[in-house]
Amino acid sequence: MSMDRAQCLLMDQADPLAFVRERFRLPSGEIYLDGNSLGCLPKAVSARLTNAIEHEWGRGLIRSWNEAGWYRAPQRVGAKIARLIGVPAEDVIVSDSTSVNLFKVLTAALRLSKGRNKILGLVADFPTDTYIAQGVASWAGAELVRVRPDNLASAIDEGVSIVSLTHVNYRTGYRYDMASLTRAAHAKGAMIVWDLSHSAGAMDLQVAACDADFAVGCGYKYLNGGPGAPSYTYVAQRHQGGFEQPLQGWLGHTAPFDFADDYVAAPGINRVLSGTPPVLSLVALEAALTVFDDIDMTLVRAKSGQLSELFMLVADEVLSPFEFKIESPRNPSDRGAQVSLSHKHGYAVCQALIHHGVIGDFRAPDIVRFGLAPLTTRFVDVFDAVMVLRSVMEQRLWDRPEFQRRKAVT
Amino acid sequence: MSMDRAQCLLMDQADPLAFVRERFRLPSGEIYLDGNSLGCLPKAVSARLTNAIEHEWGRGLIRSWNEAGWYRAPQRVGAKIARLIGVPAEDVIVSDSTSVNLFKVLTAALRLSKGRNKILGLVADFPTDTYIAQGVASWAGAELVRVRPDNLASAIDEGVSIVSLTHVNYRTGYRYDMASLTRAAHAKGAMIVWDLSHSAGAMDLQVAACDADFAVGCGYKYLNGGPGAPSYTYVAQRHQGGFEQPLQGWLGHTAPFDFADDYVAAPGINRVLSGTPPVLSLVALEAALTVFDDIDMTLVRAKSGQLSELFMLVADEVLSPFEFKIESPRNPSDRGAQVSLSHKHGYAVCQALIHHGVIGDFRAPDIVRFGLAPLTTRFVDVFDAVMVLRSVMEQRLWDRPEFQRRKAVT
Repeated sequence: MSMDRAQCLLMDQADPLAFVRERFRLPSGEIYLDGNSLGCLPKAVSARLTNAIEHEWGRGLIRSWNEAGWYRAPQRVGAKIARLIGVPAEDVIVSDSTSVNLFKVLTAALRLSKGRNKILGLVADFPTDTYIAQGVASWAGAELVRVRPDNLASAIDEGVSIVSLTHVNYRTGYRYDMASLTRAAHAKGAMIVWDLSHSAGAMDLQVAACDADFAVGCGYKYLNGGPGAPSYTYVAQRHQGGFEQPLQGWLGHTAPFDFADDYVAAPGINRVLSGTPPVLSLVALEAALTVFDDIDMTLVRAKSGQLSELFMLVADEVLSPFEFKIESPRNPSDRGAQVSLSHKHGYAVCQALIHHGVIGDFRAPDIVRFGLAPLTTRFVDVFDAVMVLRSVMEQRLWDRPEFQRRKAVT
Repeated sequence: MSMDRAQCLLMDQADPLAFVRERFRLPSGEIYLDGNSLGCLPKAVSARLTNAIEHEWGRGLIRSWNEAGWYRAPQRVGAKIARLIGVPAEDVIVSDSTSVNLFKVLTAALRLSKGRNKILGLVADFPTDTYIAQGVASWAGAELVRVRPDNLASAIDEGVSIVSLTHVNYRTGYRYDMASLTRAAHAKGAMIVWDLSHSAGAMDLQVAACDADFAVGCGYKYLNGGPGAPSYTYVAQRHQGGFEQPLQGWLGHTAPFDFADDYVAAPGINRVLSGTPPVLSLVALEAALTVFDDIDMTLVRAKSGQLSELFMLVADEVLSPFEFKIESPRNPSDRGAQVSLSHKHGYAVCQALIHHGVIGDFRAPDIVRFGLAPLTTRFVDVFDAVMVLRSVMEQRLWDRPEFQRRKAVT
């Protein structure tokens, strides 16, 4: 074999990000490769939540909206995420779910681009993004056009208000070229929104340098904000003045505490806000993001590329007898921080892997996904995981009744 | 005086709900009368959150969506709230903010009542409810008509799709008659949605017996779910099949884990869901609601009436020299669990009260509000609070520069 376990251990010793693992409470006795679904627990979260509950809520009570800074948490957490996605601190705000925030962006885009009523998306993109676009189309008199990735650039025409796509595909890990697709949209007078849920925290992003119009993303994957952590929205400054969205709750008002009779949108990014945000989840995300404070995101990008490269190298060598197909791009620059394998028994293989301590996940119809979160995954973890997968296949450990797919997962 | 402190202590001794205070971590050395903005901390919350963070997130990680029951939390917490508002357990679901949920209800109502395009609301209702209705009107081709309360019933006509109002007015504590207004709406073929944010948890509610169509409400006032706790939505079973709302995220899909290309709404209440809910805030609310598990809500209603009656009785006796006006209804059945006083120096009076340990809040232009959360407020607290208010007025303690209103509160 061209790569062995000892070499992986050496790679871990040389890893400039190895020290970051200490900032997490990691599960023991297993290899967690599902940080693209739910990131690991940063140690800073527990103390922050205890303080938020016992001191801020329990003792400060209503005063904590001001005194503990709850009111400014959407902006403050937004500023932390802004650095990770490469945009100005004051242009990101955290609230609601990614689905809800994408709804705001799509409706606002339709207003901004008067006379254009098409939303252009991809076939088989992340489902909730498609569903929301369908909802907007149905309710705002727009049309959702879905094309295959190869046809995307050529499908942008003068009727397109906004192109909506996820930056890294959730099934394959394919990473779209943000700069060139944004240029292609602008060349036809269209805008673009990037869903960064499967990107942010796993790579360096230069959303502003790419001149993208909008971005949204979730807080619970590579950002490690905890289950259902609130989502963020980026609106380029040039669009903020005209950004009108129908979920115009009181926190998006220019003067929330005037309790005025009519809605007047706040200036700047605040108008993206709707109702009161879930503070406990929001401050958990804030604490979680401190793990990134001193991290150079280009190192993160480099490591995610090396981890996935290692995965594919070892997989090529040891999995060839077992009819896997690597669904992720071979070219590192086309790839997010995951490797996806397809297999006709993918569901059972995934369950067997979990049973044997390698936590990936399954996406219908036949994809086994391995998320390689660069802050928490070691090179040796990747090596060991592929070896466990080989054992699962060699010994047909997946071929047990309890590992077979049932109809309903929940 | 017809009422003295000793009598209040006796009332507390006789209070069948007195034991419930033990379930809260209450602030010491002050009287907290702002449970209508942010409820006190139930002791059960801390342990639940520690477990959710350390065990479920930290160790269970992605598996906790199933194994710790995160997926069913929106339904499970909904069922707990259902009892408190008097509807079947399976018809309430918890997600998002009240603003977002009201948006879903109003848009769905417009689809359900084809040909009707008016939303009928009140002048000076809770601002975010009005703002959201304005947003729906602007985006869904509807018209928002706002009338004064006295004109509400007569303003319902065949053009009205839905009447939208808060059950208890946030400024005055005025409590609308749910049964008669619901009948008035139905008599004209209109539907009605009740915002129960200022009602649920402070009184017994019989939303289904009143035949109301929809209800929404927040989790952080009398339900004590913590800052920005998620909101609930009730949809009467007869409307669930036709309930279509544009925030159609993946969790509202009939088969979320099929990752299908097209949105198909789930049967029943699940179609109200949009994106992934903020689990930490959601399980905090779930733990908080356990304080209600064995509580007879008619006792809660009785106590909230007695507390506000006592407040007004003592206020009438001791505050007459000070030009307060009681803005809350004198008739207990017209009143929620709050007493509001107006005063030309209301802002400064409120600040002085807080400084002297009585936490109420101020609502522009001149209202000082006292929320009398029945589970955490003693009769003696009410008595003492009014006495502090008398001192503030007698000694002009409010007349200090630092208590005067500044322009921006945040």
